[in-house]
Amino acid sequence: MAKNITPRDKDYSQWYVDVIREAKLADYSPVKGCMVIRPNGYAIWEMMQQALDRMFKETGHVNAYFPLFIPQSFLEKEAEHVEGFALECALVTHSGLERIEGEARLRPTGKLEEPLVIRPTSETVIWAMYKNWIQSYRDLPLLINQWANVVRWEMRTRLFLRTTEFLWQEGHTAHATAEDAEAEARRILEVYRTFAEDYMAMPVLSGLKSEGQKFPGAVRTYTIEAMMQDKKALQAGTSHYLGQNFAKAFDVTFQNERNELEYVYATSWGVSTRLVGALIMVHGDDDGIVVPPRLAEWPVYVVPIYKKAEERAAVMGVLKPLLSDLKKAGIGTRLDDREQLTPGYKFAEGELTGHPLRLEVGPKDVAKGQVMLTKRHNREKVSCPVANVVREVPKVLDAIQNELFQRAKTLRDEHTSPVETYDELRRAMEEDSGFALCHWAGNQEDEQRVQEETKATLRVIPIDGQPEKGKCILTGKPSSQRVVFGKAY
Amino acid sequence: MAKNITPRDKDYSQWYVDVIREAKLADYSPVKGCMVIRPNGYAIWEMMQQALDRMFKETGHVNAYFPLFIPQSFLEKEAEHVEGFALECALVTHSGLERIEGEARLRPTGKLEEPLVIRPTSETVIWAMYKNWIQSYRDLPLLINQWANVVRWEMRTRLFLRTTEFLWQEGHTAHATAEDAEAEARRILEVYRTFAEDYMAMPVLSGLKSEGQKFPGAVRTYTIEAMMQDKKALQAGTSHYLGQNFAKAFDVTFQNERNELEYVYATSWGVSTRLVGALIMVHGDDDGIVVPPRLAEWPVYVVPIYKKAEERAAVMGVLKPLLSDLKKAGIGTRLDDREQLTPGYKFAEGELTGHPLRLEVGPKDVAKGQVMLTKRHNREKVSCPVANVVREVPKVLDAIQNELFQRAKTLRDEHTSPVETYDELRRAMEEDSGFALCHWAGNQEDEQRVQEETKATLRVIPIDGQPEKGKCILTGKPSSQRVVFGKAY
Repeated sequence: MAKNITPRDKDYSQWYVDVIREAKLADYSPVKGCMVIRPNGYAIWEMMQQALDRMFKETGHVNAYFPLFIPQSFLEKEAEHVEGFALECALVTHSGLERIEGEARLRPTGKLEEPLVIRPTSETVIWAMYKNWIQSYRDLPLLINQWANVVRWEMRTRLFLRTTEFLWQEGHTAHATAEDAEAEARRILEVYRTFAEDYMAMPVLSGLKSEGQKFPGAVRTYTIEAMMQDKKALQAGTSHYLGQNFAKAFDVTFQNERNELEYVYATSWGVSTRLVGALIMVHGDDDGIVVPPRLAEWPVYVVPIYKKAEERAAVMGVLKPLLSDLKKAGIGTRLDDREQLTPGYKFAEGELTGHPLRLEVGPKDVAKGQVMLTKRHNREKVSCPVANVVREVPKVLDAIQNELFQRAKTLRDEHTSPVETYDELRRAMEEDSGFALCHWAGNQEDEQRVQEETKATLRVIPIDGQPEKGKCILTGKPSSQRVVFGKAY
Repeated sequence: MAKNITPRDKDYSQWYVDVIREAKLADYSPVKGCMVIRPNGYAIWEMMQQALDRMFKETGHVNAYFPLFIPQSFLEKEAEHVEGFALECALVTHSGLERIEGEARLRPTGKLEEPLVIRPTSETVIWAMYKNWIQSYRDLPLLINQWANVVRWEMRTRLFLRTTEFLWQEGHTAHATAEDAEAEARRILEVYRTFAEDYMAMPVLSGLKSEGQKFPGAVRTYTIEAMMQDKKALQAGTSHYLGQNFAKAFDVTFQNERNELEYVYATSWGVSTRLVGALIMVHGDDDGIVVPPRLAEWPVYVVPIYKKAEERAAVMGVLKPLLSDLKKAGIGTRLDDREQLTPGYKFAEGELTGHPLRLEVGPKDVAKGQVMLTKRHNREKVSCPVANVVREVPKVLDAIQNELFQRAKTLRDEHTSPVETYDELRRAMEEDSGFALCHWAGNQEDEQRVQEETKATLRVIPIDGQPEKGKCILTGKPSSQRVVFGKAY
């Protein structure tokens, strides 16, 4: 157990804060609710961006950039949308600061005619542009993504998970038919699921949000939901089928193949720096974080062990060609050759910052012609002949990636249970026992009641779930499939 | 000459606007002074980002992310800094919108205790954080970069060159000695020069800004300056040695190796989406833009030529394996196989959007076992045997990269002349004859006078320039080297 880190089983929330501070992933900023993403945390986000960006491009999307500012009147054009964001949007009202005669402080000047909203999401400004870019079915589909910062004024914030400003990608696509837009929303859901499971090694449930939980302005919201180690749910990404809502609000029509004017169909979808928080909470332990190999900039952390100068020479004699070979094989390594720090100190730091594999070489290893490999997540240690390292390391990294996923999946599966009555749900939530699978046919008010009484929310209505006849645990109405309830971040 | 594009020699400013619109690089947004970077323009910025990011990392820098918002009081801490930015900073004063009984519009609510400035640059918020992160010389140097959006409220804007919001990278480094910080500022200047010349194929003059032109809060500002085709100068990147100014403003000290407390030394440096504007203006012509091969996502634009179905089959039979081989060789190709569009239409579009090399194959080429290669910038056309394409194309792309640089350098050199008197300078500026090399020993007021009377500004004091004794063209005072004056964007 690392010093300065509260153990998870003592206080999971405090553990999360401690790990982020000690691993130098992020820091609170002087502005309430805003965070600074420190280099160690940002490196994880960059790796996530690279993988996602490649997946978006492979599915035909291109990147663009739209303005930070949205005229207040634009936000007001879609009724549900503005209801959803009105109370959490930052407003720019002035364009300069002027000195007041005889006072030290400056005061705002240059009052704007219309306040500007800092984008909480960009549907409105993007659809105002799409109106100029779309005339005919030949202009469709339009498949655009942007990497950007957005601002939602939050009362209670938590590093990475919920911050006033956060970084994300937001896709905004335009289509000629409802079917095409719906297929896009589902395609992206699958991209998100693949990314979460194959890169983050984080199992997710994918499906629909209920009416009460969908995006303001959407017809349908798809989601991927993950379970953290405290058994709470985290919404990790959403993809929305928007129908013609924004096209109607911004009067975006196109000439279809039959020469008729029709409103355009839309989707939007996003994942954010919240995923870094998810990664910490799914894989981290009392010694620090664990970065899955596919998202680690330097998956192999290399520690030379020696006391005397001639030992150092022998160890480095083995390491130098090895590092060069690993580099040639495309495997990222970080050699920690800092002097005056003990191997023990380095081991602890490597564990804190989550390099998935440690490679160490000491004088005894040199004598035996081997290196020691230690898996971060379970401390499994194996020796490997120097000649085999370049062949073995990728295999070990693949194994780690798989073991991390399986460990998280086992935890989730062990804490996902069918629940047959409302009392059972209440008890399950009191005991923090995880995901509850129950029959449900309630409305928004019923969901509200469940949340107030049990703290659980309807996380996801699984798609491709097993059809099963039953009765709603609250209303007793007939239901055709189970949904997932859980406490959430 | 492409339709809808005003020729450069008729109206260079209008040409610039036309090219951006027709090539779909950017668009004005509904918010005054803000632009939308469209996918074609953003792809160029992404390629620039990739190259620069690699160069920053190779020189030991890491990325991080700091907040968009800066408390007004922070901006006020460094006197010159706040003077420089006070009149162009956007201010957030409220955190929500509320409905007014009986009215359609919403009004701002949730007034903030202290207004927040949207970062015009991030020195102040970053140095507030560095205060917590730096204690000892062991924490130095701290070499951090961020990719971000910034806002400077501009009265007169121009797509890419000067917009209220723009994208950039800003490096902020902390050092234990003045020498180390100074070396960093010069190292980055050299990174910028290398990027401009080797990637953008844009020759630059590098050196110092005068006192009147340096960054608010800097001790010294280094710059790279390029010449556009209208002979005007464009500042393409700056690197600042900040001394201890920000460390003092934010009380950032460290324990040096002699156990004394000392203020930290700093640099900051940045390039922005303005570089996309520079690229357009340096290489574009009356048919569109020209993207240098090293910054082209798809350097090779591939057009199959056929009328009948069997011709199409033959042409694609040649192209398919060729494209696969080029891909394997790491060369980006874009096959334009859109039906119902003539080759002529595609040629024009490929020229408009600036793919540096066109590869075309028609039935006659199939018969001869060849392809046709056409260089975008000078329409040079050569045939190439199919078997040699993978070997030849990289050479042709290298040649294009080099020719673009040489063409731009020739233009600049032909429009750079020594000027011996103030009258000569005035005349040179009236005739838009380019850069004037003159002896200078004036102060800030003298510079101001030159600008008012000739529209020229002191662009750069070359470093590593030839020492040469002379007399200041305005004041007659002795001068030891020539500086560069020119009209600027």
